[in-house]
Amino acid sequence: MYSTRIYYQDTDAGGVVYYANYLKFIEKSWFEYLMSIGISIPEWEAAGVYMIVKNVSLDLIESLRYGDTITVATDIFLVKNAYFMMSHRVIKDNKSTARCETKMVCIDKNGKPKRMPEDFRNKLIQNIKNGQQMRSSITRSVSRDS
Amino acid sequence: MYSTRIYYQDTDAGGVVYYANYLKFIEKSWFEYLMSIGISIPEWEAAGVYMIVKNVSLDLIESLRYGDTITVATDIFLVKNAYFMMSHRVIKDNKSTARCETKMVCIDKNGKPKRMPEDFRNKLIQNIKNGQQMRSSITRSVSRDS
Amino acid sequence: MYSTRIYYQDTDAGGVVYYANYLKFIEKSWFEYLMSIGISIPEWEAAGVYMIVKNVSLDLIESLRYGDTITVATDIFLVKNAYFMMSHRVIKDNKSTARCETKMVCIDKNGKPKRMPEDFRNKLIQNIKNGQQMRSSITRSVSRDS
Amino acid sequence: MYSTRIYYQDTDAGGVVYYANYLKFIEKSWFEYLMSIGISIPEWEAAGVYMIVKNVSLDLIESLRYGDTITVATDIFLVKNAYFMMSHRVIKDNKSTARCETKMVCIDKNGKPKRMPEDFRNKLIQNIKNGQQMRSSITRSVSRDS
Repeated sequence: MYSTRIYYQDTDAGGVVYYANYLKFIEKSWFEYLMSIGISIPEWEAAGVYMIVKNVSLDLIESLRYGDTITVATDIFLVKNAYFMMSHRVIKDNKSTARCETKMVCIDKNGKPKRMPEDFRNKLIQNIKNGQQMRSSITRSVSRDS
Repeated sequence: MYSTRIYYQDTDAGGVVYYANYLKFIEKSWFEYLMSIGISIPEWEAAGVYMIVKNVSLDLIESLRYGDTITVATDIFLVKNAYFMMSHRVIKDNKSTARCETKMVCIDKNGKPKRMPEDFRNKLIQNIKNGQQMRSSITRSVSRDS
Repeated sequence: MYSTRIYYQDTDAGGVVYYANYLKFIEKSWFEYLMSIGISIPEWEAAGVYMIVKNVSLDLIESLRYGDTITVATDIFLVKNAYFMMSHRVIKDNKSTARCETKMVCIDKNGKPKRMPEDFRNKLIQNIKNGQQMRSSITRSVSRDS
Repeated sequence: MYSTRIYYQDTDAGGVVYYANYLKFIEKSWFEYLMSIGISIPEWEAAGVYMIVKNVSLDLIESLRYGDTITVATDIFLVKNAYFMMSHRVIKDNKSTARCETKMVCIDKNGKPKRMPEDFRNKLIQNIKNGQQMRSSITRSVSRDS
């Protein structure tokens, strides 16, 4: 779990965290999460394997303010041949203040999609969190009826 | 239509625009679009009316690089009592390179949701782009089968 | 002259532009200024010539707020064999609200300092603004006695 | 000492940390440093005491790359009635890769400069690092002769 304080750089003149900056917390969380299960993105890149973000959905539930402390929890909930999906929760005081899903696609040096290497893919599969996919259909990006 | 060049600050070490920075282009686009239809967000804030982002979906189609020139096209496709939805396309050489949808919710100074003022809401309604909602169901955030 | 509005993304919870974001305005200004005198940084990079920032001084004079419109004026005031220096003013309503100086050093693909190509250097020299260097010694970065 | 990894969000298409992002590391470092000596900026703000950055000098010595781990060391080297100065070093593998100095000025809610409260100022004074000021005159912002 990635943990950080909210600094001025994360906020905007509305007094709360600027919406794009959630995606920065989330990058840090997935980087550290993947590292914790044995996947170093920089090392894979050195070997010619790149993961790029293809789709993102983000739901902001409760505002975050300067000086707050948050943790971000990242889970893997779907692994296919050429992509995988993660869900992320931004937590403050044991409450989810934001939810996010990201689809990451594997590409080669020239930007062409390619199969994830077996070792990379196996580590992802071993860490799939059951039940996540169901929740994911609930928290789908832009809800039209609230 | 908001237009900009891609600068170093927009890119990352992968050589392309960093995913969170799309949301920055999109904020600038909706600000200028709303201004062009007679809605100044800073003026409404001075009057105690705030619009916050509640949900975002982002689809990255094609990478953007340092020195590229893009335009962002913003349309309104749904207006309710307390929120409205916009779609955004990031265009390079007449091709969509990214798509985004945002749901904006009206709140008061204390963060409580509230009805949008009539004048604000009427200007939005007069500028709804027909046919956008249909497209929106296609470009729903995180596609699971591509 | 680069001109922009101040958006939420530029500000922080103090209600004003976040200090690091001045350097983003300034990058855009020097990019456009160099372009205007016939120097395209992306094209020179394609030819193996890179310019990196080596030193920066920044003086914040007056705060900028959400919705403000600013222009940034960039001038070249010193050109040597392997580096050149620019000064930048962030202007609102004809008043300087921030001043900055940057030293840019020429490097090759491996990060080694190298002479600037003659064509590149000549264009810089033809556009040196006289009198700038004098001012620069006044606005030196971190003043200790104010 | 604030410590972090370098993520994609910190870098640019040149493959290295983008120059403005150093100021973000440095904000985090001074926030945590001041916290460690008993000064919580958010708490002082709640009491109507604000510290703003007035001047910055930044010297980039060696590039930082995706996946690198850095620490930032912050020291106080000058405390006056209404402002104080800090120096910051960005360290990788026991080597300084960047140096920075910042002047912070005390203001009230309306942006007017004011004396720092005694308790605030005393804590700063008790933590002045001797010898820093001397070094500071050496690393003055934008050197003209290298």
